[in-house]
Amino acid sequence: MTANTLPADPYWSRLEDHWEAVDRQDPVVWGDGSGPWPAPQLASYAEDGFQFSPALLSPAESARLLEQAEQLAASVDRRAAGVISEPGGGAVRSVFRVHREHEAFAQLCRDPRIVAAVRQILGGEVYIHQSRINYKPAFNGKEFFWHSDFETWHVEDGMPRMRAVSFSINLTENNEFNGPLMVVDKSHELYIRCVGETPDDHFQQSLRRQEYGVPSRDALQMLVERGRGIEAPKGGPGSATLFDGNTMHGSVGNLSPAPRTNLFLVFNSVENRLVEPFGGKPPRPEFLGERDVVPVSQL
Amino acid sequence: MTANTLPADPYWSRLEDHWEAVDRQDPVVWGDGSGPWPAPQLASYAEDGFQFSPALLSPAESARLLEQAEQLAASVDRRAAGVISEPGGGAVRSVFRVHREHEAFAQLCRDPRIVAAVRQILGGEVYIHQSRINYKPAFNGKEFFWHSDFETWHVEDGMPRMRAVSFSINLTENNEFNGPLMVVDKSHELYIRCVGETPDDHFQQSLRRQEYGVPSRDALQMLVERGRGIEAPKGGPGSATLFDGNTMHGSVGNLSPAPRTNLFLVFNSVENRLVEPFGGKPPRPEFLGERDVVPVSQL
Repeated sequence: MTANTLPADPYWSRLEDHWEAVDRQDPVVWGDGSGPWPAPQLASYAEDGFQFSPALLSPAESARLLEQAEQLAASVDRRAAGVISEPGGGAVRSVFRVHREHEAFAQLCRDPRIVAAVRQILGGEVYIHQSRINYKPAFNGKEFFWHSDFETWHVEDGMPRMRAVSFSINLTENNEFNGPLMVVDKSHELYIRCVGETPDDHFQQSLRRQEYGVPSRDALQMLVERGRGIEAPKGGPGSATLFDGNTMHGSVGNLSPAPRTNLFLVFNSVENRLVEPFGGKPPRPEFLGERDVVPVSQL
Repeated sequence: MTANTLPADPYWSRLEDHWEAVDRQDPVVWGDGSGPWPAPQLASYAEDGFQFSPALLSPAESARLLEQAEQLAASVDRRAAGVISEPGGGAVRSVFRVHREHEAFAQLCRDPRIVAAVRQILGGEVYIHQSRINYKPAFNGKEFFWHSDFETWHVEDGMPRMRAVSFSINLTENNEFNGPLMVVDKSHELYIRCVGETPDDHFQQSLRRQEYGVPSRDALQMLVERGRGIEAPKGGPGSATLFDGNTMHGSVGNLSPAPRTNLFLVFNSVENRLVEPFGGKPPRPEFLGERDVVPVSQL
């Protein structure tokens, strides 16, 4: 097999100086989709690329997890890999790999209310590709621009196919004012190739570097216009949004006095384990993309 | 009269290293409040510090003004005082003093639907203290942190009393996703003294400098908790929010594909014209705080 007969990577990105939208090459629901999750919910998930549960966890469970998350933020070693603090030694913004470090979070990854739906979508056993707690502090929670997680997982981590989903579990209320998760309806159906670097012009290059892995504005506009547009599911502690790894999402800043703390779990199929990153660079650290595959049933 | 018998400035700010909330020393509604604006609306405005009109202008009027605003952004001299562009020569973010430059906007300042309510609140003839168009572009409209305009007008421009109101007129739809105006209910009742500079420690000083004229987080929390909290009135083109000059307000970034363009008119009583700034520094440029008082009836 010579180089030019190798199958092309259907999800290449960051190689050209323009964006492109291509059809998703993988099913959204793998396997026959049978299982305990009701068929109408599965169908709505498959169509929209996300599904909101107003009460996935009970208020008491959610309160216990929030307490654990706050203890973790207070006690964690700020210099450890996977602990992200504000510049200047301020508040902890994210703690990664919580499923490996803390039993309460590992247990949640095995919880049937969570993993049953995930297995049903991904068609079989799954493992945690990434887990983290995001602390979006009151008054100065920063915004996250629109992105497809899968684009990054594929290019930077080496995830071969679209066979991963994310659960964003709200440990505090997510309301209109504290920067809730926003998703673009039906955006999971298209893969957006992001603009890459061009070495021709240093100034342009430095402008583009900010856009590295970021979808173009025209691409976003097109995605917003083809479905129902932007949606921001809101709910109390214990509510959760399950979304496809390729669903375009982001969030605005939090200017409200209410912190927004979310637990974020990414499940990948054990048949979709990471290979060499498709972007040709060394993989990111394991707290961002797990390379040691442990099925959730063995966590 | 010697210095220590001068009446103290009730609205001093930025002088101490801690914040303070004090009662407003001025009425919200000056005079007897009589006039064409219905009493229940006036009462609700007085109580909340703001009033939303879902259809102040007709869609056709609003569309015409948006067209004017867009022509203005395209034709204006980027280097002129009162024209604020994005860093790097990008989009125009704000054009100030539009009531002096453009008949369509001057006419709006005299429009009975606008000025009648303003005169009724402020008890007599008014002039434009500041006017501007804010262009909050799609995808990268920046956030504005919470602030009381009056605090700045008093300290930096020399506005003596709380006798000014703002009309924020939506020329495009303001929705959940394009960074709508957010107000804190009943915040107009209290004056928040902001933290000032402390020359003791350079590092602390540089941290504080970012906070110059910005209310402390504890102050904001207290304000949010004492009323109905944060509200973000939303509406189509032609909707408008009238709010007291001391009402705490802000807005998050715009990550949506819909630009948010607002016309912002600040009316001050002709009996409340500017004096020397109470912060002791020279006044800001006139496009930010008009010193040439022209009653709106003579615009």
